[in-house]
Amino acid sequence: MILEKAVLNVKPELQKTFEDAFRQASVYISSVKGYVNHELHICLEQENQYLLLVTWQTVEDHTIGFRQSEAYNEWKRLLHHYYEPFPIVEHYKKIEL
Amino acid sequence: MILEKAVLNVKPELQKTFEDAFRQASVYISSVKGYVNHELHICLEQENQYLLLVTWQTVEDHTIGFRQSEAYNEWKRLLHHYYEPFPIVEHYKKIEL
Repeated sequence: MILEKAVLNVKPELQKTFEDAFRQASVYISSVKGYVNHELHICLEQENQYLLLVTWQTVEDHTIGFRQSEAYNEWKRLLHHYYEPFPIVEHYKKIEL
Repeated sequence: MILEKAVLNVKPELQKTFEDAFRQASVYISSVKGYVNHELHICLEQENQYLLLVTWQTVEDHTIGFRQSEAYNEWKRLLHHYYEPFPIVEHYKKIEL
């Protein structure tokens, strides 16, 4: 299992509608092969900053499967204009503690 | 519930022992009032980068309860010399989707 992490800086003038747009977009990411779950968190210290965490079965389920899907076109259409700067996405593997 | 997030950049020459030190330190953070759970993830794209996620009942359980505890002294002693630069810690609240 792989954790995708992205810090999302939402344009302040668009923040009001971002969470609803994200809820709509959630349907698309959830429909893709290899998707496990996702969470959106809002930052307490920095207004307009969100943390997106998505669990995938493999990195390729995200970087290839999702990004080349029709669902990703809908995800982009709903969300990408909210971000400034455009988010850096990284992938992580859980350490057994 | 509050999610604490910190990106940990571990000094390359110390990475070998970091995960074991983190396992030792886990006992201390887990013992504190208001602690719910924690996870450590290693980044696939950037060597020596980790993602720490800790769930707390309230922000103050972390920023006051933990940081003023004896357990935090042990946590610091075990871990703080591994980081360069010192991590920025932020707190998030989950958005209901």
